[in-house]
Amino acid sequence: MSDIDHMQHALALGARGLGRTWPNPAVGCVIVKSGRIIGRGWTQDGGRPHAEAMALTQAGDQAQGATAYVTLEPCSHHGKTPPCAQSLIDAGVSRVVVAVGDPDPRVNGRGLALLRDAGISVDFGLCEDAARAAQIGFLNRVTLGRPMVTLKLATSWDGRIATSMGESQWITGPLARRRVHAMRATHDAVLIGGGTARADDPSLTVRGLGIDHKTVRVIMSRALDLPLTSQLAQSANDHPVWIIHGPTADADLKRIWTDIGANLIEVPVVAGKLDADAALAALGAAGLTRVFCEGGGALAASLLQNDLVDVVAQFTAGLGLGADGLAGLGSLGVTRLAQVPRFVPQSCEQLGADVFTLWQRA
Amino acid sequence: MSDIDHMQHALALGARGLGRTWPNPAVGCVIVKSGRIIGRGWTQDGGRPHAEAMALTQAGDQAQGATAYVTLEPCSHHGKTPPCAQSLIDAGVSRVVVAVGDPDPRVNGRGLALLRDAGISVDFGLCEDAARAAQIGFLNRVTLGRPMVTLKLATSWDGRIATSMGESQWITGPLARRRVHAMRATHDAVLIGGGTARADDPSLTVRGLGIDHKTVRVIMSRALDLPLTSQLAQSANDHPVWIIHGPTADADLKRIWTDIGANLIEVPVVAGKLDADAALAALGAAGLTRVFCEGGGALAASLLQNDLVDVVAQFTAGLGLGADGLAGLGSLGVTRLAQVPRFVPQSCEQLGADVFTLWQRA
Repeated sequence: MSDIDHMQHALALGARGLGRTWPNPAVGCVIVKSGRIIGRGWTQDGGRPHAEAMALTQAGDQAQGATAYVTLEPCSHHGKTPPCAQSLIDAGVSRVVVAVGDPDPRVNGRGLALLRDAGISVDFGLCEDAARAAQIGFLNRVTLGRPMVTLKLATSWDGRIATSMGESQWITGPLARRRVHAMRATHDAVLIGGGTARADDPSLTVRGLGIDHKTVRVIMSRALDLPLTSQLAQSANDHPVWIIHGPTADADLKRIWTDIGANLIEVPVVAGKLDADAALAALGAAGLTRVFCEGGGALAASLLQNDLVDVVAQFTAGLGLGADGLAGLGSLGVTRLAQVPRFVPQSCEQLGADVFTLWQRA
Repeated sequence: MSDIDHMQHALALGARGLGRTWPNPAVGCVIVKSGRIIGRGWTQDGGRPHAEAMALTQAGDQAQGATAYVTLEPCSHHGKTPPCAQSLIDAGVSRVVVAVGDPDPRVNGRGLALLRDAGISVDFGLCEDAARAAQIGFLNRVTLGRPMVTLKLATSWDGRIATSMGESQWITGPLARRRVHAMRATHDAVLIGGGTARADDPSLTVRGLGIDHKTVRVIMSRALDLPLTSQLAQSANDHPVWIIHGPTADADLKRIWTDIGANLIEVPVVAGKLDADAALAALGAAGLTRVFCEGGGALAASLLQNDLVDVVAQFTAGLGLGADGLAGLGSLGVTRLAQVPRFVPQSCEQLGADVFTLWQRA
């Protein structure tokens, strides 16, 4: 087993926490001594304990002289728990391999320095691209002040989500829908526009996977004019509902939604629309690191226009619905191709009768 | 090497003829004796010699007692050459393995019967699905009276082919464009609408592959109002140009286009548009077996509406152009999802920054 094998193991462990550790990063850690894996850890639900703490607990006294592989620079600041860099030092590990730095101003190189100052051999940058992609939500929140955004598009070949008569169930098949639930489970929050909330009355919960996952449901609704009979309203006490609204939302509606358990966030309105940048910044400030946007077309367009999308999850069904069908992406006002954000494919696979392609911002 | 290996070898040989053998099928043949391959053949350009004749010539006297693997039932009728079933009998092969039957009324089981009557052991139906898919052009022409149609879609995620300002170069990248040329080369003809011919002034030739391939260029133009200065007009003497027009096309234009080398085909107009069924029937009657449609959106919609598309070749670029962009597929008048022809994915792959998916009619 090489350093790369162990770091990939740590990355796989870290991925278990995606969607469950916010506002903290989902980190993985493997501790190896004389070729034997003596500790495995990943950030636990809600962000505590950290991956290193869990792996060190497993390793116990054996950690003395061992190598720790960590997917993110160990923290150096005292929070709810002692800093992980100090824990690694105290445990006596002799070498630490780190994939990517933690840009949190309280860390930002201090974790590595603390280890080096204690005489520990530190290797930095192994599997850096993979670690950056896996932890892009946390990294974006720290460096850009907003969560990472995955935009789901589930359309016909020609980008339509319903016939001219509004029929939309079902364009994609059961395997694609199941994958959507799995993607919800690896994000902190699901985000939709108010029009989609009214038209589809979705619950946006994670179902059918045999796991308990309370994804935050975020709705952008300028006037807060969402039906109180909706599934989202009815379940607001069980699963978090956050509503991003404009400054002119009715005070009575604000009180009612607060009473039924919703968390209200006010952002400015620009050119008649909720400011997408401000909305994402508010979600970042509230601690969210990974947001899964499921439409509708106007919200998707607004996010793309503001270059706020990091990943596109595209589900394509094998049919054309035609120019008279309902477009899954609203108007973008693009005139020159050179100004459009480009994405590169990461993977493509068949999911039953559909095709699933993951795209990453170039 | 099993029977399946040899038949797959024959299928690979047959594929060499795709786009080059019309009006004949592109057949492959392998002759095997005592485990040794003693003859390999495929239908030659223009359809002669047949695959069996080429393989038998290679095998010579050794064919006595050998097994022949043929991707299509050997012909039983005297055409420009003696029937292949008779040639196999005369060569003394003892066993013939056939993938799929030839529905041509002059054959249609008579080839197999001729072999069996001569005491040859005949196995039928090996790799039948693959052989049917490979030879769907010929099979469609015989059974449906029309060629197979591959519809190319090269769009953004949201099915757009140009910005609201009409900019369309380049949405997909060089590897996708190269694949388009390769696909033109495996089809007998490229088909476009008159609007696309006027807007893009394409040459529709096969370029950049180091092969000489004279694809027939077919344009659907109701009024025959295509510019005589176009690349298609200028090259009509070197590469075939066929124009499908309506009954009211101007007589002077008809004379001019005929004079510069174009082949004119008149079909009826239905609801203001050239009748797509009649157009495809005319192409089938003219001998075409494989047609590659490259748009535009109105023609693509017309073909899908009439369920005339067998394969969709979808190139997707990693960007959104928005609902104000130009749609690559026109209106279909779909109201109920249940009435839309469905396609299933055959393959998906990354082509540089684009994704290429092949879909087959379910």
